[in-house]
Amino acid sequence: MSGYESMEREKFLPERLKSFCAAILERVGVPSAHASIVADSLVEANLRGVDTHGVILLPRYVKRIRLGLMNPKAAPKIVRDSGAVAIVDGDNGLGQVAATKAVEIGVEKADRYGVGAVGVRNSNHFGMAAYIALQAIKFDMIGIVLSNAAPSIAPWGGARPLFGTNPIAIAIPTGHEPIVLDMALGVVARGKIRAAAREGKSIPEGWALDEHGQPTTDPHAALKGSVLPIAGPKGYGMALMVDVLAGVLTGSSFADGISSVHERGGATGVGHFVQVVNIKSFMPIDAFRARIAALASKVHQSPLAKGVARVYLPGEIEAAVKKERLQSGVPLSKMQQEELVELAKELGIKTRFLSKIGLERSGE
Amino acid sequence: MSGYESMEREKFLPERLKSFCAAILERVGVPSAHASIVADSLVEANLRGVDTHGVILLPRYVKRIRLGLMNPKAAPKIVRDSGAVAIVDGDNGLGQVAATKAVEIGVEKADRYGVGAVGVRNSNHFGMAAYIALQAIKFDMIGIVLSNAAPSIAPWGGARPLFGTNPIAIAIPTGHEPIVLDMALGVVARGKIRAAAREGKSIPEGWALDEHGQPTTDPHAALKGSVLPIAGPKGYGMALMVDVLAGVLTGSSFADGISSVHERGGATGVGHFVQVVNIKSFMPIDAFRARIAALASKVHQSPLAKGVARVYLPGEIEAAVKKERLQSGVPLSKMQQEELVELAKELGIKTRFLSKIGLERSGE
Repeated sequence: MSGYESMEREKFLPERLKSFCAAILERVGVPSAHASIVADSLVEANLRGVDTHGVILLPRYVKRIRLGLMNPKAAPKIVRDSGAVAIVDGDNGLGQVAATKAVEIGVEKADRYGVGAVGVRNSNHFGMAAYIALQAIKFDMIGIVLSNAAPSIAPWGGARPLFGTNPIAIAIPTGHEPIVLDMALGVVARGKIRAAAREGKSIPEGWALDEHGQPTTDPHAALKGSVLPIAGPKGYGMALMVDVLAGVLTGSSFADGISSVHERGGATGVGHFVQVVNIKSFMPIDAFRARIAALASKVHQSPLAKGVARVYLPGEIEAAVKKERLQSGVPLSKMQQEELVELAKELGIKTRFLSKIGLERSGE
Repeated sequence: MSGYESMEREKFLPERLKSFCAAILERVGVPSAHASIVADSLVEANLRGVDTHGVILLPRYVKRIRLGLMNPKAAPKIVRDSGAVAIVDGDNGLGQVAATKAVEIGVEKADRYGVGAVGVRNSNHFGMAAYIALQAIKFDMIGIVLSNAAPSIAPWGGARPLFGTNPIAIAIPTGHEPIVLDMALGVVARGKIRAAAREGKSIPEGWALDEHGQPTTDPHAALKGSVLPIAGPKGYGMALMVDVLAGVLTGSSFADGISSVHERGGATGVGHFVQVVNIKSFMPIDAFRARIAALASKVHQSPLAKGVARVYLPGEIEAAVKKERLQSGVPLSKMQQEELVELAKELGIKTRFLSKIGLERSGE
């Protein structure tokens, strides 16, 4: 049976998908421990239903590495260490690696001081922000993660992108499923506008402005213009503040100093800001858990709006998708599968290896 | 000349307005130092054009004090101190007093550890959030301030308010005018819906839901329902996270455990979360200022959308209003003036005193 045949199957075992991603990354020079972190982040995104930040990113990461734009052997290191604060230089490597290290340092700081704030400079796209914030949960700590990104949002009233859709993720440990907010500050990802342009579709009003700062439903005009921030000027203000913390304060690039992963000009210069809060410094963990359980229960017992079946906590829908996908596998589109096969072939990874990730073959 | 005559004048000298507010607060038992902080916060809000958080709040504060619901002689004290973390009990006093103390502690912590996180419990409405965050600026530190508030936003999909419009303020020192974001997480303040109800006007779609969780333009239906969060589920998620940090983690009340200042059931139980970040722990202050100046300049040099005269940094419009009002005085509506006169009369403060706050009499 050829690898292509198994590729036609739609769902994949998460563990096999991780091994596959890690193998690809190792083949382009990423050390095994780092490849494993990135693979875990990508597949975790797919598991949580955040497919835009899943294995679909792998070919892009690999491309940048092979073009010499991203350093596969990056060794993120602490370049500043001052009490509860540190700065990590990401060595132009994979963002997940530098950001995960930042959380580790943040956890140590928070363990000692109650709170830790770690800046990351000279990094790259770090995948799903929630993945980074969730690293703190294991230690019964709160994780707060901000990142800047290549410009797609214009300052309010402006006509040219200056700020990224800069994600904010906050993860709260509960003793059970964590509560996790993971949001970007744009109304929509630029990728969705690119997709509409490819498919010749128009985009809804309220997504984007053209290059003159006027509302547009034409995806091509939107791509020359800017994505609208959430909540108008408030979202612009938040995007700017994230950039101040993740870019300006960390010594990384900021605003239009950040290049897109689609550009080939060199390092992106992305920066992150990671904060860890030690709950035990505020109150005993059991007291906190009881209070969070009370909050969760109030949310779940909310009277429902007409036509709504259930009210969810932030991250609860993603947790439900993960539960389901752990059972049934991670669905990948035909296009994504083909891209991964192509990548494997280019890198000389046997299709036999690929065929092993097919879910139906898991019993073999 | 009677006090009423001068009341017809519309603009007031900020310093006189402060003295007036402080005198009123002292008369109901607030110690002079605390009265001065609150008066400063209220008039600063008016100066910045944030009139909803200006002296209009004074009668409400005084009412709660006179009803025995808020403690005028509150002495906020540290109830937990652990490394870079502390918790302040606000002693059910004026929120500005407890929050200002929290910033002071945060600054000390940040001076020592690079960052300080201070929770405030058992507090009350603290006026304009930016005022609190701006206290950190004087020390070349970043101030981040969150507060919970009485419920007005329903969880996404729910039909009953559970979270406040929980403000977030961030102030960044620049060496010149600080950059200041101060935003609530509701599309609109409940006060605006109350005003529409009083005036028999309808409200725009997108402001509120009725008690069945359905969109409504009827302000009466909206007041029985909930205010919409900014950016839909994202705003709900942020409001919840602010409540976790400001309410759950601090040991204060949270969700519908917080009472409105309009209720007479007892303490509101409002909580705050104050964080101070010491820039010097990240980089020399001059380097930071140069980088922030570069960011500001990029914003100001943005190509403009058609019909837009200028792009502003967060807080820049407020700073311009302040500059103007420092010259021309703080405008107060006839109704606000009358309320203040009424309050002064009730408290036996001479209208002669009031007449002194008239701007035109400043030369006397």
